[in-house]
Amino acid sequence: MKRFAIVGHLAATAGTFSLNDLPGSAGRMDVLCRCVNAALFLSHDLRADVECYLVLCGEPGPEKTVLFVGGEVRYLSPDERSSASLIKKALALPCGDAFRESTPGVYVRRGGLARLLDEHPFAVLAEDGGDIRHEEALPEAYLLSDHRNFSDEECELIAGRSRHSVGPKSLHADHAITILQNELDRREHGWR
Amino acid sequence: MKRFAIVGHLAATAGTFSLNDLPGSAGRMDVLCRCVNAALFLSHDLRADVECYLVLCGEPGPEKTVLFVGGEVRYLSPDERSSASLIKKALALPCGDAFRESTPGVYVRRGGLARLLDEHPFAVLAEDGGDIRHEEALPEAYLLSDHRNFSDEECELIAGRSRHSVGPKSLHADHAITILQNELDRREHGWR
Repeated sequence: MKRFAIVGHLAATAGTFSLNDLPGSAGRMDVLCRCVNAALFLSHDLRADVECYLVLCGEPGPEKTVLFVGGEVRYLSPDERSSASLIKKALALPCGDAFRESTPGVYVRRGGLARLLDEHPFAVLAEDGGDIRHEEALPEAYLLSDHRNFSDEECELIAGRSRHSVGPKSLHADHAITILQNELDRREHGWR
Repeated sequence: MKRFAIVGHLAATAGTFSLNDLPGSAGRMDVLCRCVNAALFLSHDLRADVECYLVLCGEPGPEKTVLFVGGEVRYLSPDERSSASLIKKALALPCGDAFRESTPGVYVRRGGLARLLDEHPFAVLAEDGGDIRHEEALPEAYLLSDHRNFSDEECELIAGRSRHSVGPKSLHADHAITILQNELDRREHGWR
């Protein structure tokens, strides 16, 4: 299973935001929606071997994590509004300590990055990391930040984890996921 | 100058569509909006050396072409709704044979693919093309299709042009642009 986790530093933790204002009132939820798209979509198909975790750290709090499971998800189209609508439904659900399904393949629970890092061996996608093209083996789980850098507290949590870079330019998180998926696809299919 | 052109087979040619329904009433305009994002955006910056052409072939017709110029564009955010809003403004402008600016860096004119192909040496991004990683020199202009395949008429127009592939999987047009930009970035910066 491939896993992508994206920290949404301002992303809404209540389902009351407007689908017409994802960058503003929803706390740059548009960034996370594009990450869901990049992690899960093939042309006319979904990647069944991918899980995408959205760590929502914005108002009103406390932190929640929304999970999209590629092999189970339904009612998801590639546009931002579609994934935002499923996130909104997840956030409207009473939230417990365990993942609870809101719509098929979409889950929500309490808690943020610290808890997630205990569960999976996430590597970090970062500009100062090693070039993914030249690493002999690549991890299966990656952590990214949204439009903001990781906070000092988050940097402490991820200290010591392997760091990987997708190229020479500073890119949006969803673009980095797309490039990483391409590298993983190429390795799986003998395209090097 | 790098150029990307995307054919939107159903994409609206009037500015009357709803920003709340880009996949439906706007004719999969969401696909084209994501292509604008992939072509133009870096993290917290725009690519000044890129032009992105959207060939709109949908209702009510006739065809129009909308051009985003990376070095000039203003009021563009990464979310789909932002680029859609600029496209909507462009389409509301009376449309002539020459490109006319609707908002800074966004232009519109009459005409579609045939005219554009006469103006720039577009190569074709297609699954049956040569692997971009292994080609000695890469073109600077690329043509892609939206969620539909090129029509028979379009295939005739592009017959004989070089064809290039970004990887082993069939991907969305915007993902293909992101991967291509990464390959071009790497070549420019000596990351191979």
